[in-house]
Amino acid sequence: MKDNTIRSFTYELLRKYGMTTVFGNPGSNELPFLKNFPSDFRYILGLQEGAVLGMADGYALATGQPTLVNLHAAAGTGNAMGALTNAYYSQSPLVVTAGQQARNLVGVEAMLTNVDATQLPKPLVKWSYEPAEAEDVPRALSQAIHEATLPTPGPTYLSIPHNDWDKPASANMAHLLQRHVDVGARPNPGQIAGWAELLERARKPLLIFGPEVDAQQANSDAVKLANKLGAPVWVAPSESRCPFPTDHPSFRGVLPISIREICEHLEGHDVILVAGAPVFRYHKDIPGNYLPEDAKVLHVTGDTHQAARAPFGEALVANVKQSLAALVDAVNVKGRKLPKPIKKPKRTDDPIGAMHPGNLFHLLDQLAPDNVSYVKEATATKETFWAHMTMSQPNSYFFPAAGGLGFGLPAAVGVQLAMPDRRVVAVVGDGSANYGITALWTAAQYQVPVVFIILKNGTYGALRGFASLLGAEDSPGLDVPGLDFCAIARGYGVEAESANNAEAFERLISSAIRQQNRPFLIEVSTTFGE
Amino acid sequence: MKDNTIRSFTYELLRKYGMTTVFGNPGSNELPFLKNFPSDFRYILGLQEGAVLGMADGYALATGQPTLVNLHAAAGTGNAMGALTNAYYSQSPLVVTAGQQARNLVGVEAMLTNVDATQLPKPLVKWSYEPAEAEDVPRALSQAIHEATLPTPGPTYLSIPHNDWDKPASANMAHLLQRHVDVGARPNPGQIAGWAELLERARKPLLIFGPEVDAQQANSDAVKLANKLGAPVWVAPSESRCPFPTDHPSFRGVLPISIREICEHLEGHDVILVAGAPVFRYHKDIPGNYLPEDAKVLHVTGDTHQAARAPFGEALVANVKQSLAALVDAVNVKGRKLPKPIKKPKRTDDPIGAMHPGNLFHLLDQLAPDNVSYVKEATATKETFWAHMTMSQPNSYFFPAAGGLGFGLPAAVGVQLAMPDRRVVAVVGDGSANYGITALWTAAQYQVPVVFIILKNGTYGALRGFASLLGAEDSPGLDVPGLDFCAIARGYGVEAESANNAEAFERLISSAIRQQNRPFLIEVSTTFGE
Repeated sequence: MKDNTIRSFTYELLRKYGMTTVFGNPGSNELPFLKNFPSDFRYILGLQEGAVLGMADGYALATGQPTLVNLHAAAGTGNAMGALTNAYYSQSPLVVTAGQQARNLVGVEAMLTNVDATQLPKPLVKWSYEPAEAEDVPRALSQAIHEATLPTPGPTYLSIPHNDWDKPASANMAHLLQRHVDVGARPNPGQIAGWAELLERARKPLLIFGPEVDAQQANSDAVKLANKLGAPVWVAPSESRCPFPTDHPSFRGVLPISIREICEHLEGHDVILVAGAPVFRYHKDIPGNYLPEDAKVLHVTGDTHQAARAPFGEALVANVKQSLAALVDAVNVKGRKLPKPIKKPKRTDDPIGAMHPGNLFHLLDQLAPDNVSYVKEATATKETFWAHMTMSQPNSYFFPAAGGLGFGLPAAVGVQLAMPDRRVVAVVGDGSANYGITALWTAAQYQVPVVFIILKNGTYGALRGFASLLGAEDSPGLDVPGLDFCAIARGYGVEAESANNAEAFERLISSAIRQQNRPFLIEVSTTFGE
Repeated sequence: MKDNTIRSFTYELLRKYGMTTVFGNPGSNELPFLKNFPSDFRYILGLQEGAVLGMADGYALATGQPTLVNLHAAAGTGNAMGALTNAYYSQSPLVVTAGQQARNLVGVEAMLTNVDATQLPKPLVKWSYEPAEAEDVPRALSQAIHEATLPTPGPTYLSIPHNDWDKPASANMAHLLQRHVDVGARPNPGQIAGWAELLERARKPLLIFGPEVDAQQANSDAVKLANKLGAPVWVAPSESRCPFPTDHPSFRGVLPISIREICEHLEGHDVILVAGAPVFRYHKDIPGNYLPEDAKVLHVTGDTHQAARAPFGEALVANVKQSLAALVDAVNVKGRKLPKPIKKPKRTDDPIGAMHPGNLFHLLDQLAPDNVSYVKEATATKETFWAHMTMSQPNSYFFPAAGGLGFGLPAAVGVQLAMPDRRVVAVVGDGSANYGITALWTAAQYQVPVVFIILKNGTYGALRGFASLLGAEDSPGLDVPGLDFCAIARGYGVEAESANNAEAFERLISSAIRQQNRPFLIEVSTTFGE
């Protein structure tokens, strides 16, 4: 039943880009878009817009494809803006649309008018726009899709008056269905040759890989380069993805997050290649020298801002995968030995009534399938997690790129929807879980078989760590007692059990991982710390 | 233990303005502010920033005082921005502060840097700022407080680098403790005389009151004017407060929300005084004439934007309470009869297993204490609610002013904290409840005795109504099945029971209202519609 409206043309355009999964939470302004929703599309409802955006973010990160989010005017957009901080920093190609009031009611600021709509999502979107007339809606959407995916990728925003959708589509719109925008971002041989020579001649080269490597599925290129150079590999600090197999002998772990500590870890290396990450994304304020003396940083990224912003280094703005592949070809060394692999920590004794997070991760690593994908949002246990887990494939790890809480539960649902053939395990703290809690409902309703693990220690663990660093241990608001995530999960329709020892956890996780079409939540009492 | 830091001076400044209740959710950037948190302050922790801001909004609305909110950088601010839409439209004097990264880490965009911090909360704040040096923090906070409270009141935003707090306070800061900013916004006699004469001579005057009347506690002035003129009174459309006692004979109800329907309701009136509301805050798109022919609109508001934006009417920008009081004095008529009071709808028969919302409200109205305060967020039942409830005091009703969902549960907690001597009853839909669900935890932890009533009909009721209007009944995402709010509430530490008939509801509400120091949640199965 094809009509000739802006609406039906828009669905045609979305089909062209494979954007047939729509994440949303509708209000009255959005209904005219959702009217006659085509049967080849699926609508994933979230109960709060932060969760909606987080789910879409996970989906976009795991597919690498532009993903449509449909939010309700200013209030819906506002609710999603915490989640947007992560999407912006993970370069997630989200196309966020929000319904605007009818054009005749915008000037008088009728209820649900998105006033200064294009201003609202800034600075957390690459581009934001409200078409000046209905006829421009399809072109604007086409632009929003391309803006979201072209380098540097990131979210875009479109505010669309709700009385535009029934207007007729014009013949000129058909050109949009024929458009194709390609990108040339390959380095030329001269650009690569100099770096190859520096790496060949380096006394002690070091490789640091970041999220762009995983986003571009360049993990195997990273491995080839490490193999050729025999170099150790660190994951860039404030990691949001796993760019390099943790079971490769070169793998050293994740760099720390302060200027001084990073410098200490780089000590002794003369040529340091950083690929697909900022140099560097610091976090903790421990001042020091950026780099050891005489260390040379070679920095390749597709992100123009990161290249411009960096306080040191020789930068190449180019596609990271193509640059790594070119370097692999160009570097001419043989017989380099790989470093000795690092050892995993051993399992320790748990106290009665709780597990050490390290022991939990140890067990999880043993029991999870090889191609498991982790969504992690338990900041205090990041290091312990990386020390224990085996992650050998692309898309094996997702962490909020801006540190914005509310990512874990929703993103896990989105990643699982994107990769139905892999099992997604969300590892989330009892503080973090509350920011995106309603994603549990979506998991239940759409039978998304995520295994949710809540680490329950009754406190904001990462904050406790910072409180020591800052001498602020007496601050209020650091503890979160009195939470029963099994009850909450059941309230949202998700089966749940709690565990307070390794045996119980082992039993629950083994059974949860086998479930094929429904989520399961395990609340584990954990100790604060390792 | 007084030190001489920016931090300790800031707490002194907050004391001066009575801002000793801090609503927040901390991250590492905020810890240096919260260090040595003074014992005469209280910190109200919320588990998600939308709920934090909603609680603060309720508190500020009920107290009328500037209220401090402390959020975590960009992600925390972002999470709160849906709630900020309501605070902006309800002119809530919120002073929102957010921790910024250490000054030395802002340029390199370290994790948790709030990039373009002053841009982020726009356009939902009146003023936003990041001090250019630590020494300016106290003055900037003083400005933020005054900006929030001066006409037109509204939220303000301050981003404060976390390494500013330990810096020394300068002698010049002491002047801030002496400051006082007063406002002259009283109309002069000439401005009032003309309007008084128009009202005296009017054949059929009409009064329309809006939220500024309740915010300024001018309800009794509104009553005096109605009594003098013998005029009927409507509440302005898209109501967010109750400006006029519903048990007064003049009370007609709330005006509808479309241009055409409002015009129909104004038919026959020659002079229409609108006080403390926009003319008008429409919502539904049913075009028509703004006003009946020859109707004259007199519009008094303290909001300069509303006066500038209005498409009709003679406006006076002045304090609403003082203007109403002046009109009461100036209007010289006697012996006018009041209209006959409207009748409340009768109770009807409930189907088996559910209650009609009207019957629920009927019972609630009978059983609630006289000075009850309602926080309402169940859009589909707004009209039914107003038809049944008795609200005779100021601060008896709060509804999200921008229609942003996530207000109900949090605002109820804030209102109850602001008015411990009154009982707050939150009436919230099963769709709406999810957007601010974590406020339940704060109610439990701080023993805030709100009675939460969840109307559970399994659907976004207001959307269902709009879907009919827009012919979009087939839209996806309109239903919310599979929710158990009793389980969720218990998971957050709140005692809860469900009711699916009048007897059960009566028993539960009677007992809940008597509880003095803990919240209670009642989930009621309701029918869709009246």
